[in-house]
Amino acid sequence: MSPPHIDIGMVGHGFMGRAHAHALHTLGHVAPPSRPVRLAVLAGRDPARTERMARQLGFERWTTDWREAVADERVEIVANLAPNDLHAVVSIAALEAGKHVVCEKPLGRDPGESRRMLEAAVTSGRVHACSFNYRFAPAVALASDLVRAGRIGRPVHFRAQYLQDWGWRAPFGWHFDAERTGTGAIGDYAHVIDMARHLVGEIEEVAAHVATFVPERADDAGRAREVTVEDAYVASGRFATGALLNLECSRMAHGRKAHQTFEVNGEEGTIRWELEDFNRLRVLLADDAEPRSFRDVLVTEPQHPFLRWWWPTGHVLGWEHTFVHQWAGILEAVAGAAPLPARQATFEDGWRADLVVAAIGRAARDRRTVAVTDAEPQRTHEHRSREHHA
Amino acid sequence: MSPPHIDIGMVGHGFMGRAHAHALHTLGHVAPPSRPVRLAVLAGRDPARTERMARQLGFERWTTDWREAVADERVEIVANLAPNDLHAVVSIAALEAGKHVVCEKPLGRDPGESRRMLEAAVTSGRVHACSFNYRFAPAVALASDLVRAGRIGRPVHFRAQYLQDWGWRAPFGWHFDAERTGTGAIGDYAHVIDMARHLVGEIEEVAAHVATFVPERADDAGRAREVTVEDAYVASGRFATGALLNLECSRMAHGRKAHQTFEVNGEEGTIRWELEDFNRLRVLLADDAEPRSFRDVLVTEPQHPFLRWWWPTGHVLGWEHTFVHQWAGILEAVAGAAPLPARQATFEDGWRADLVVAAIGRAARDRRTVAVTDAEPQRTHEHRSREHHA
Amino acid sequence: MSPPHIDIGMVGHGFMGRAHAHALHTLGHVAPPSRPVRLAVLAGRDPARTERMARQLGFERWTTDWREAVADERVEIVANLAPNDLHAVVSIAALEAGKHVVCEKPLGRDPGESRRMLEAAVTSGRVHACSFNYRFAPAVALASDLVRAGRIGRPVHFRAQYLQDWGWRAPFGWHFDAERTGTGAIGDYAHVIDMARHLVGEIEEVAAHVATFVPERADDAGRAREVTVEDAYVASGRFATGALLNLECSRMAHGRKAHQTFEVNGEEGTIRWELEDFNRLRVLLADDAEPRSFRDVLVTEPQHPFLRWWWPTGHVLGWEHTFVHQWAGILEAVAGAAPLPARQATFEDGWRADLVVAAIGRAARDRRTVAVTDAEPQRTHEHRSREHHA
Amino acid sequence: MSPPHIDIGMVGHGFMGRAHAHALHTLGHVAPPSRPVRLAVLAGRDPARTERMARQLGFERWTTDWREAVADERVEIVANLAPNDLHAVVSIAALEAGKHVVCEKPLGRDPGESRRMLEAAVTSGRVHACSFNYRFAPAVALASDLVRAGRIGRPVHFRAQYLQDWGWRAPFGWHFDAERTGTGAIGDYAHVIDMARHLVGEIEEVAAHVATFVPERADDAGRAREVTVEDAYVASGRFATGALLNLECSRMAHGRKAHQTFEVNGEEGTIRWELEDFNRLRVLLADDAEPRSFRDVLVTEPQHPFLRWWWPTGHVLGWEHTFVHQWAGILEAVAGAAPLPARQATFEDGWRADLVVAAIGRAARDRRTVAVTDAEPQRTHEHRSREHHA
Repeated sequence: MSPPHIDIGMVGHGFMGRAHAHALHTLGHVAPPSRPVRLAVLAGRDPARTERMARQLGFERWTTDWREAVADERVEIVANLAPNDLHAVVSIAALEAGKHVVCEKPLGRDPGESRRMLEAAVTSGRVHACSFNYRFAPAVALASDLVRAGRIGRPVHFRAQYLQDWGWRAPFGWHFDAERTGTGAIGDYAHVIDMARHLVGEIEEVAAHVATFVPERADDAGRAREVTVEDAYVASGRFATGALLNLECSRMAHGRKAHQTFEVNGEEGTIRWELEDFNRLRVLLADDAEPRSFRDVLVTEPQHPFLRWWWPTGHVLGWEHTFVHQWAGILEAVAGAAPLPARQATFEDGWRADLVVAAIGRAARDRRTVAVTDAEPQRTHEHRSREHHA
Repeated sequence: MSPPHIDIGMVGHGFMGRAHAHALHTLGHVAPPSRPVRLAVLAGRDPARTERMARQLGFERWTTDWREAVADERVEIVANLAPNDLHAVVSIAALEAGKHVVCEKPLGRDPGESRRMLEAAVTSGRVHACSFNYRFAPAVALASDLVRAGRIGRPVHFRAQYLQDWGWRAPFGWHFDAERTGTGAIGDYAHVIDMARHLVGEIEEVAAHVATFVPERADDAGRAREVTVEDAYVASGRFATGALLNLECSRMAHGRKAHQTFEVNGEEGTIRWELEDFNRLRVLLADDAEPRSFRDVLVTEPQHPFLRWWWPTGHVLGWEHTFVHQWAGILEAVAGAAPLPARQATFEDGWRADLVVAAIGRAARDRRTVAVTDAEPQRTHEHRSREHHA
Repeated sequence: MSPPHIDIGMVGHGFMGRAHAHALHTLGHVAPPSRPVRLAVLAGRDPARTERMARQLGFERWTTDWREAVADERVEIVANLAPNDLHAVVSIAALEAGKHVVCEKPLGRDPGESRRMLEAAVTSGRVHACSFNYRFAPAVALASDLVRAGRIGRPVHFRAQYLQDWGWRAPFGWHFDAERTGTGAIGDYAHVIDMARHLVGEIEEVAAHVATFVPERADDAGRAREVTVEDAYVASGRFATGALLNLECSRMAHGRKAHQTFEVNGEEGTIRWELEDFNRLRVLLADDAEPRSFRDVLVTEPQHPFLRWWWPTGHVLGWEHTFVHQWAGILEAVAGAAPLPARQATFEDGWRADLVVAAIGRAARDRRTVAVTDAEPQRTHEHRSREHHA
Repeated sequence: MSPPHIDIGMVGHGFMGRAHAHALHTLGHVAPPSRPVRLAVLAGRDPARTERMARQLGFERWTTDWREAVADERVEIVANLAPNDLHAVVSIAALEAGKHVVCEKPLGRDPGESRRMLEAAVTSGRVHACSFNYRFAPAVALASDLVRAGRIGRPVHFRAQYLQDWGWRAPFGWHFDAERTGTGAIGDYAHVIDMARHLVGEIEEVAAHVATFVPERADDAGRAREVTVEDAYVASGRFATGALLNLECSRMAHGRKAHQTFEVNGEEGTIRWELEDFNRLRVLLADDAEPRSFRDVLVTEPQHPFLRWWWPTGHVLGWEHTFVHQWAGILEAVAGAAPLPARQATFEDGWRADLVVAAIGRAARDRRTVAVTDAEPQRTHEHRSREHHA
């Protein structure tokens, strides 16, 4: 008999750790899962900070050794929210220890890592989720439902951007170090690649340009450090269906704070979303009456995805509730109460996104159009040996 | 020595109860107060529903008699989130029992009720807060800071709207019954009156029109019931400073979900906010360089009010966090760690808003301009006797 | 037999004169009228400036005496675009001379003037048009067509604003002088009153507040002059149908350039327009499919009103083409080729708008709700005597 | 001594002919040129239609042989607004006949054609202009002025789109025939390439994908015809400065009517424009005060480019006035009264844009990154022989 609570071991307590912990608490109050959640153990690097965050976020225990969290017998789910260089090693260890795993994106630093993670997940038979959380924004969920229902016809165009401007003032950190992060803007903003796959399907090939506008940055200690990843990229491409792809991501677009947008043009309609207008969806549907035009849907009505849990119509939701909605399905799957929602990205989705990440990088380097299936990794062995000593 | 936790007794578990409980949990995880909060007891009318909500919202106990919650010795704060006809009786009882009180808006059903509440609050010496929560939306807080800093000069115009459309399909309920709710759209949307006072100052006089477009509604049992409050109103007026006032609220504006907006035009600039674009503030400031125009500020940066508690720039917040921000200041005041923030509305603000509510109603009835100070109540005795038997 | 050309005598060559002359030229190139137009004579006050403008605008002759233009036998239409204090005297003289008359708004300085203009027009049997040009903005025309077709149901709310900010920096001129202009913001922005009548019907009563924020201004010679009209007003009111009215106009709203907006909420839908987004119309219609929401119609498609004359879809039009569309119908009526379009405002519309203007002023002065039918003029005799000596 | 009028010979009376003729008339009324314009002769293919349009547009004569217009001694400027396959032959003939030439975009069907046009122009010493009219939209002119003044710092990103949806319902016509048009979406929307060059500088290299979603269309006679050009493309690229380029154009994006947009992100600010919001410019400038954010500038103030000719602030302009502004500078240059404005695109700009058009096409075909300087034409001889028989 399973215990009443699902114990969660969390690795990482930065931005993502806070967001996931917040979501797990909130879920209990808005849509209690079949088996309640217990935040069992938090693993971090720095003892003082980990202790403080464990207390604040409501964890029962904390540790500076993620292996303890993974080895803990009571823990059923490992939430792997650590920097990218710990994604593979922690997730694989957790799966091998029989845990269900939720891992932040990008799944691996390259498709070799993510493929090994996927293989471990499949072998384990456990629930595996890659936290492409935007699938669970109500407006995005509605978009996906409308596309799947054929309301815009067959997609012919997908364009997405993720533009920010923090790159102009950020000190050197792991996000600028290829060794630790894999890629820069390409993988960091893998959300747009996942959106493309989620809404339109598999990407067949890409061409691209990348740029590093600030080649050297001072770290916190004031030392000049070389930036080894791209600040920005632009890619064109084609889906297996023949639809065209346009992606652009940058950390260096002044005034753009979290300007993630996508637009899908179908044979009969169009759908557009912007993260900064989180609760709105712009739609033009096949069956619209005259005068036909975009509708500006405020996705806060009870019949919209996930909205019955929340407030009366018009009382807008924030970004962080994507995690609430995502965890709801994961927890029911872990509890055996329901299959993992089709909407949930798995390690397979993480791996496939990483293939596109790699293809974009290679296309830019090789100055040619690259098939996504050709983007299998070069650096697998190197990473593996590093991980064994992590 | 005060106990480590602040015990909270909550009356009401509808929309507002859920929102406040959610906020109190969240606050602990994002900005832990000096003394942690304990949700001690929840009072509701229906036993089954109260028990279920107490469990879901994380209360230790529940009761169907609000007097129990008020009488509970451990309870330090009573959160009065019940329907309007319980605002005065519960709040006054709680204050007389030595509790701090947070009461939802409108404070009373008429200025007589709210004045007695204010008198009880002042007599008690306890913290008293009227939950005009929008003061704690980051964009509104920034607006208020900019106005107070003189960045738009002396205000000459204030216009606000609160438009919704649920009135077209709602069954009869207490919101349509003058006996229980006091007024309809005027008091229900007292937020816009509070915004006017918060941003510009006291309102001197008003003229108005009201309308009840659907005079009869079926209740849940299918019986036709007379609607005894207004569905909508439009008011013009003048502030003590000479600035002009324009207010319009309606439950009957198709397509408007929670279209609360305000705009302040000053002698040197303008500020505008819309609830449905919760995280944005439109500003034109006195010191802007050419080309001068509205700026569209995404209020999600660390230097913006309350934002250092939350996510990286651009990751937008939802409506419900107004309550998190509001409770933070109330709890520090109750803990004696800081004075109640100047931003916080008190029972005095609730009473003054109710004076304007009453003046608008009287202006419409009497077909003349009415001074706000003339809006003292007629029905005080009647309400008092009803309350004693509630 | 009528001559091939319609000769036009124009009085006034300021902003309005330029706009009308431009429209008359343009009309010939985009939608040639049955009888071509000839700009016969331009009347202005200052000889040098009138001569220069006559040349630039393509007039055959010019004069500094408007009576010459009115007396000219070849002139068939007098376009009266002079300041308000010449509206009645010029229009009545022209009608008595058998001319068709197009007069700018507001028709008179008070309803007494406009009633006498209407009476002269009716007596003359000539075409009379009051230039409420926004009725001929394609988006407004579409709005009106949709309302008349019942696509939003019976209107219950009408709200409109006309906000500008030039008042903060304008020198004293005739717009600030009650003697010459009649009223300030109320009559100047009579467009919003006409929109209310055009889209919803007759206004029954109003209550209002007015303000003059800058009571004294320097004229061009640097002399301090008293401002004798209002800078701004706010009015509430009720239509004969029971619908509520909300109007606000101001010359003192920083950042607002020509912020004319209206919104009509009906029993089944909503329509909204903003002048600064001239080509867009926001609509929510009774027959919309889920997800229901506002549509943002770019009114540039061939099936939209007047658009078949212009450019391919999406190539947006400017404000000045309202006059092109308006003149098209007036010229066909003068040519006898078609009746005056129902869309065209006449002197009756001008008079009825002036009644509302007067009622708003009186409601503010008398601090009470005023019936529009009670707004008959006080100053008729005074004006009449002045005009006879003008 | 030059004659008082500048006689213009126009080839083509479709959409572009109407727009240019309208502009030439309007210019005379809003900002009379040093030497007035006379519409001397209109050349078209179909006699009945050419005669009708000549009359409507105010031409003195018409012809079905463009050579007549070119040979006419009085004609000083030839406005070449014919389909693309007449751009080179007509323009070169006109230049050789000593005429100044204004030619619509794209200049040639390939860079070979446009280079020969440029050579003829340089040899002739006449004024030559390529009608990239958007440079003369007031908001775009302001954008360009701000970029040149360094107000956003050195550009690092340029992204532009031109999306329309007429392709879903259009019959076969010359726009779908490579022989007549050169390219499809790439050249048709060469405006975005010109904007890139105008605002950021020369493009060094591109990678791209193209698609033809509807490979066969019925012509007006109902015959199925093969579409030999692309419906849409996506390109990434790099400027000589290192800035990144993102272009996407399509005739097949439902709901997009004339969705031309560009955004330039500089090292210190950002500028964005959208054609459908013709009069607005979004700017974030280096010297903005806190709270920093995009400003939404309504470009209708007298100090904005070209606005002193027009209406009071806020009275928005339409698309067609780009041509008025463009012609003003061309006419002064022809009159010898001023040099051709730096803002004006010449045949050199047309040729350089065509090089980018060709590079994008080749990159897509060859599936590799292509240097713009490698895009010299392959098909020059073929076109030349065809033209000699046109």
